[in-house]
Amino acid sequence: MADARTTISLDAMIMADPKVPADLDAWLSKNDQRIFEELNEFLRIPSVSARSDHDGETRRAAAWLHAKFAGIGFATETIPTAGHPVVLAEWRKAPAGAPTILVYGHYDVQPPEPLELWTSPAFGPQVRDGKLFARGSVDDKGQLWIHVKALEAQLAVRGTLPVNVVVIAEGEEEVGSEHLGAFVEQYAARLACDAVVISDSSMFAPGIPSILSSLRGLAYFEISVQGPSSDLHSGMYGGAVVNPAMALARILSTFHDRRGRIAIKGFYDKVTPFPAAVLRGMRRLPFSDARFRREVGVKALGGEAGKTTLEKLWTRPTLEVNGMLSGYTGEGAKTVLPATAMAKVSCRLVPDQRPEAIERLLKAHVRKVAPPGVRVTVQHLHGGRPWRADLSGRVFDAARRALSAAFGREPVVVGEGGSIPVVGDFERVLKAPVLLVGFGLPGENAHAPDEWISVDNVRRGMRAMAMLLDEYVA
Amino acid sequence: MADARTTISLDAMIMADPKVPADLDAWLSKNDQRIFEELNEFLRIPSVSARSDHDGETRRAAAWLHAKFAGIGFATETIPTAGHPVVLAEWRKAPAGAPTILVYGHYDVQPPEPLELWTSPAFGPQVRDGKLFARGSVDDKGQLWIHVKALEAQLAVRGTLPVNVVVIAEGEEEVGSEHLGAFVEQYAARLACDAVVISDSSMFAPGIPSILSSLRGLAYFEISVQGPSSDLHSGMYGGAVVNPAMALARILSTFHDRRGRIAIKGFYDKVTPFPAAVLRGMRRLPFSDARFRREVGVKALGGEAGKTTLEKLWTRPTLEVNGMLSGYTGEGAKTVLPATAMAKVSCRLVPDQRPEAIERLLKAHVRKVAPPGVRVTVQHLHGGRPWRADLSGRVFDAARRALSAAFGREPVVVGEGGSIPVVGDFERVLKAPVLLVGFGLPGENAHAPDEWISVDNVRRGMRAMAMLLDEYVA
Repeated sequence: MADARTTISLDAMIMADPKVPADLDAWLSKNDQRIFEELNEFLRIPSVSARSDHDGETRRAAAWLHAKFAGIGFATETIPTAGHPVVLAEWRKAPAGAPTILVYGHYDVQPPEPLELWTSPAFGPQVRDGKLFARGSVDDKGQLWIHVKALEAQLAVRGTLPVNVVVIAEGEEEVGSEHLGAFVEQYAARLACDAVVISDSSMFAPGIPSILSSLRGLAYFEISVQGPSSDLHSGMYGGAVVNPAMALARILSTFHDRRGRIAIKGFYDKVTPFPAAVLRGMRRLPFSDARFRREVGVKALGGEAGKTTLEKLWTRPTLEVNGMLSGYTGEGAKTVLPATAMAKVSCRLVPDQRPEAIERLLKAHVRKVAPPGVRVTVQHLHGGRPWRADLSGRVFDAARRALSAAFGREPVVVGEGGSIPVVGDFERVLKAPVLLVGFGLPGENAHAPDEWISVDNVRRGMRAMAMLLDEYVA
Repeated sequence: MADARTTISLDAMIMADPKVPADLDAWLSKNDQRIFEELNEFLRIPSVSARSDHDGETRRAAAWLHAKFAGIGFATETIPTAGHPVVLAEWRKAPAGAPTILVYGHYDVQPPEPLELWTSPAFGPQVRDGKLFARGSVDDKGQLWIHVKALEAQLAVRGTLPVNVVVIAEGEEEVGSEHLGAFVEQYAARLACDAVVISDSSMFAPGIPSILSSLRGLAYFEISVQGPSSDLHSGMYGGAVVNPAMALARILSTFHDRRGRIAIKGFYDKVTPFPAAVLRGMRRLPFSDARFRREVGVKALGGEAGKTTLEKLWTRPTLEVNGMLSGYTGEGAKTVLPATAMAKVSCRLVPDQRPEAIERLLKAHVRKVAPPGVRVTVQHLHGGRPWRADLSGRVFDAARRALSAAFGREPVVVGEGGSIPVVGDFERVLKAPVLLVGFGLPGENAHAPDEWISVDNVRRGMRAMAMLLDEYVA
């Protein structure tokens, strides 16, 4: 998912007349209602990969998607992994010598909690003000669906595709794509392609199609502090026994210095500067800190002193607390000295930081600052490498033309604060360029309550992605 | 509840032959089974005062107790308060000019969570190894029961009591006795007495009856940190938006200095030293840090440098985190930048600290250290004043004789790290000395899973408390 940025009203944009081929446009218009009805079916499946008690639903989402690919004439397999399966769908009837495009997406979604903050049910899709609300609407079922329907449109209208197409849809993106790297290695021959296309990110603003130039990596940890062997009465024991919650707070407070820099020794050693041209492009983007603050709902921003907001979000590593739990957190007061405390902590990484190296540095830091009287353990839950695109070549040129036609303006190049761990694997194993072209929007609430995707972006996205295949061989 | 301390085996004690009057002893022995069956009924009622969804059960505990007092001939009323009701039971048929003793206890209990750590159900009392396990067994239903049955024994055997007795049992002790202060003021005339007796604490060790000389006070707070208006994707926003969990950790980390002292300006201003004689007595008690560490299950102790453990627990103020919650705390990883973070924080107070003054100091400190970009609020949930006893006079002398007879050895004088907020109110409003004599034991797990009371202590406690009435007029 791309980052929040200036919200520009769609009405204010001067849109050139889209030059989408009439046959594709007509088919997509005629089938519009069915396309969204089917997407709603997909969104109703609570395929929360992080929850083992949802495994049945996650498998059901894979089976549903399998049936859809089979239905449009793709040779489809659902391939088991040590975790959730991969749906692999192939169409290889293009003329001899035609190139191959690989499309990647994921059918799993983030946990929907806190449920009480959703306006409509997380798994009961609903359109309001041109936005389709549901967990997974933008991340990533709705964006994967754009490709499914672009392919169906091409096949329905033309009876063929101009390129061979391989689609892989995984079910573990939201838990770190743990098994996908090995899958790509194992199936490298079948996945061989000329370019990879992924829609799991956002546009810079409404009406401004965007190509992603970089992703941050991730190293996700759980820090556990064990104090006394059971919860104690805070009056009976308080003052003589080290409090695990307080110990955890002290450890967390050592992770940043007063200037917002991460104070873990060696943390920045492998950070390499972004190309000057990319940084210049970022500075030209219409971004307002004041609007960003209003969108987020805060009076002041934080982070590293001396960096712009887009630099902080797209080009700098971070360390965040994602969750924290200790002792009594219910209604009223309980005078307990907790036995344990836990924090989920994750670092966003930039080239050329490596999750395994960050794990070593974090563990060494925690060992150094942990107080006596408690046992502190750090578990590395998962990691993914950061990534930067080249931005030149056939797939990027085709994308610029297709996006210009469907959206009526040239795409901009943006960075991205989030992670899509598999991008690096594709580039490394398949030796193919990766195009990241997303159709989310600022404020889309990916990973939060009231997640949504713009209905208009789904429509334009299907047209752009159908055209991409034509433009690739133009 | 009194503090943990050296565990001395009961077998190792040389017990003088108890000199409990034969009539009382015989009646208590004969009725032993029924006494414990009734106590089990009391313990089965989950009267968790902190939980509004348990209000029905809390009222049921009051009604049950009301019926028991009425059944032994006390004029009994259940008096509503703005919170849970007070059971007021009176017996005023002593000879003209006889003194009046007021007994206080509470029928509410702590929340039982975490439930999975109980060996037998929290509200399914069970005896193992001479220990009666249940939430409320020692804090305070079991100890209140000792008095009910001591009174019943006297009445059954002698047909009368040597003194007038007023009992008040409240249902809000575990949530700070919010309405009891006003109740004592309002009913001061009916509560007028020559001495107050409370059993809601512990003995220093098995076989060593103990009289409490001091209680710590309490000031309990909830600190809330509000960041962005909703949960955000930690990749999209991380690095530019202040993380509320991290802000909370930094705030908590400022509460102590490197020597374990509380670093809130003015916090120690009103702390007055304990009398030298009391401190000398504490140093003579058989206490071992190594055993204390083993009991608690830690390798090192914490707290203020340069103080002994008993000094820290009984004579020094504290600040503890009782609970902490932010963001995603379930299975697996969720890359969320949380909108809010919360900590429950409480201070134990010693004479002459006042909860209201501590509230002002804490709020001023938090205002000073809270970072920009988040809103921090501090709510004072409840407070209670610290207390010190005089230890001289008729009720203390009577208690020494009664405890010596029932336990076969002289009581020791101990301090106490916990709080019984109403003790100060009794002394102030009723102008009567307060005797705190408890029958819990080290490791009794008050406020934790597997709470228990020694069955032997219940038996000896009933005998001692029945004798106390005789000794008071001896």
